[in-house]
Amino acid sequence: MDSCVIPLRHGGLSLVQTTDFFYPLVEDPYMMGRIACANVLSDLYAMGITECDNMLMLLSVSQKMNEKERDQVMPLMMRGFRDAAEEAGTSVTGGQTVINPWIIIGGVASVVCQPSDFIMPDSAVPGDVLVLTKPLGTQVAVNAHQWLDIPEKWNKIKLVISREEVEQAYQEAMLNMATLNRTAAALMHKFNAHAATDITGFGIIGHARNLAQQQKNDVAFVIHNLPIISKMAAISKAGGNLFGLLQGTSSETSGGLLICLPREQAARFCAEMKSSRVGLSGAVGQDGGAGDGQQAWIIGIVEKGNRCARIIDKPRIIEVPYRGSVVSAQEGSNNNASPPEVQLT
Amino acid sequence: MDSCVIPLRHGGLSLVQTTDFFYPLVEDPYMMGRIACANVLSDLYAMGITECDNMLMLLSVSQKMNEKERDQVMPLMMRGFRDAAEEAGTSVTGGQTVINPWIIIGGVASVVCQPSDFIMPDSAVPGDVLVLTKPLGTQVAVNAHQWLDIPEKWNKIKLVISREEVEQAYQEAMLNMATLNRTAAALMHKFNAHAATDITGFGIIGHARNLAQQQKNDVAFVIHNLPIISKMAAISKAGGNLFGLLQGTSSETSGGLLICLPREQAARFCAEMKSSRVGLSGAVGQDGGAGDGQQAWIIGIVEKGNRCARIIDKPRIIEVPYRGSVVSAQEGSNNNASPPEVQLT
Repeated sequence: MDSCVIPLRHGGLSLVQTTDFFYPLVEDPYMMGRIACANVLSDLYAMGITECDNMLMLLSVSQKMNEKERDQVMPLMMRGFRDAAEEAGTSVTGGQTVINPWIIIGGVASVVCQPSDFIMPDSAVPGDVLVLTKPLGTQVAVNAHQWLDIPEKWNKIKLVISREEVEQAYQEAMLNMATLNRTAAALMHKFNAHAATDITGFGIIGHARNLAQQQKNDVAFVIHNLPIISKMAAISKAGGNLFGLLQGTSSETSGGLLICLPREQAARFCAEMKSSRVGLSGAVGQDGGAGDGQQAWIIGIVEKGNRCARIIDKPRIIEVPYRGSVVSAQEGSNNNASPPEVQLT
Repeated sequence: MDSCVIPLRHGGLSLVQTTDFFYPLVEDPYMMGRIACANVLSDLYAMGITECDNMLMLLSVSQKMNEKERDQVMPLMMRGFRDAAEEAGTSVTGGQTVINPWIIIGGVASVVCQPSDFIMPDSAVPGDVLVLTKPLGTQVAVNAHQWLDIPEKWNKIKLVISREEVEQAYQEAMLNMATLNRTAAALMHKFNAHAATDITGFGIIGHARNLAQQQKNDVAFVIHNLPIISKMAAISKAGGNLFGLLQGTSSETSGGLLICLPREQAARFCAEMKSSRVGLSGAVGQDGGAGDGQQAWIIGIVEKGNRCARIIDKPRIIEVPYRGSVVSAQEGSNNNASPPEVQLT
């Protein structure tokens, strides 16, 4: 499970909590803070929990930074973290900072809830469909952006993507990583989700397998479609199957939720993700937030099987267009391309 | 405050939680794990909270260790942490491990409690006395132990202490750091403590000042006695007032609680610390634990004043004897010297 659930001594309540910390992977400290916060909260959202009672922030300041760098970078990172927490309707009270060779940012999210507040991720049934709420490819996008300055790396991929597109893909990845999975968590209840997990370090196939293993019923997950940030599949191919993106092994940071939904509910789930706020207070970010709703995709089916997961031989790659620069996202513009048609092949 | 207290949406309950992580400071990985756990829990104990609903363990494995070193060191550290959590009547469910240049160990302690479970650290009154539940000097002891192998450092202190005494002081410091402040937390309720904090990185005077500043009443804390691990005061003097131990600025790791108690209760508090287990389940450690009860000392008084704290000009140094090696502590032996007389000068 993505979070631990501790039964309490008080009337049927449970303490649900999760922690995560990692190293910066984007250059913008403010966005890094938002991403770290979204990433911690995502473990709660994967269980359909929409509220968080408290967050702790865990930081280590690099000893290699001079005082000026510290004073510029760390407050921005902390502000990003706090802003995302506020967007999530919670706050950061507590935490710790140490000095370390590397910068680390992370946190702890805790909530005390009733059994009806969370959805145990173990009740998928044959006939369900799999929905994914963010596109894949964040690792490829972040790395490609670094390769702009490394000629031997850049030469391998420059035939399939322009510098400008790399910048756009990187912005798109940042926006996606900084987006809270909170709307998806709320809609899990509305549309009777049977199980969910969030996609992070093990890639979509790793997390799909973990989720499959936890199921009570004899099920298997089969993934037909891979929604991927535009051009990242091409980069992966050009680089010789870079990170295994098309095999689903490329790690994601603060990825989407992978949700098992009753087939008849899935299309409406995706439509509401795209259109609505489901009444969550504070779900609109000031910047780097959810924009005008998030795309979600039906990517596969739940069959009868022995608790495993696989991607079909030739999955359909859904090229997810860039929504534009951070600036235009802040101005509230929407995707400038029409959404790709979504169907099971 | 040592922990954050978050009011919950459920009938008068609060979520109290704290986090702490740091770098290893003793060579024994198992003891380091115990110390890290005791150190995290200490923030709850400082608020008179005796139960913990869940702990998360935060670890970073050093990239400089080879695989064999990792496989030897990290499981021991984790076992120490888990054993101490078990001694505290809680368990470790969740956490995260990353790779880092340096080893980091720490954790998060969370509990959901009723208002009567915790004592807000703000109600000291003139006439109270200050009690300390562990001796000072852990930083000096740990450093002196490292200096056994650094001739230029060792030469400065070898006139006042033998190598064997350094070893004993180091063992004593380890045992103290690994001791839970749980008994003290329970006795805070029994003897109507008015406020408390735990002594860590800012030294006794730093934490005394922090505590004084939080008081509702016009009080000042005056410290008369400094209980210090035997010979550590001499080392500090020989080293040219090393770490400011006698000024109270030497940092402590997983130090004792500093408690404001009604004067008439303090002696009984100390007596019960020494003699009893106050019925806490699991309060007896298998090793490195509380031994046969802990010494506590009346170290000062609460006067009328402007929320400050000070140590008198010539504080009485209480030399706290070594209880013997870890082995003899495991065998249940007690202090081999009679406890020092404790009185306010």
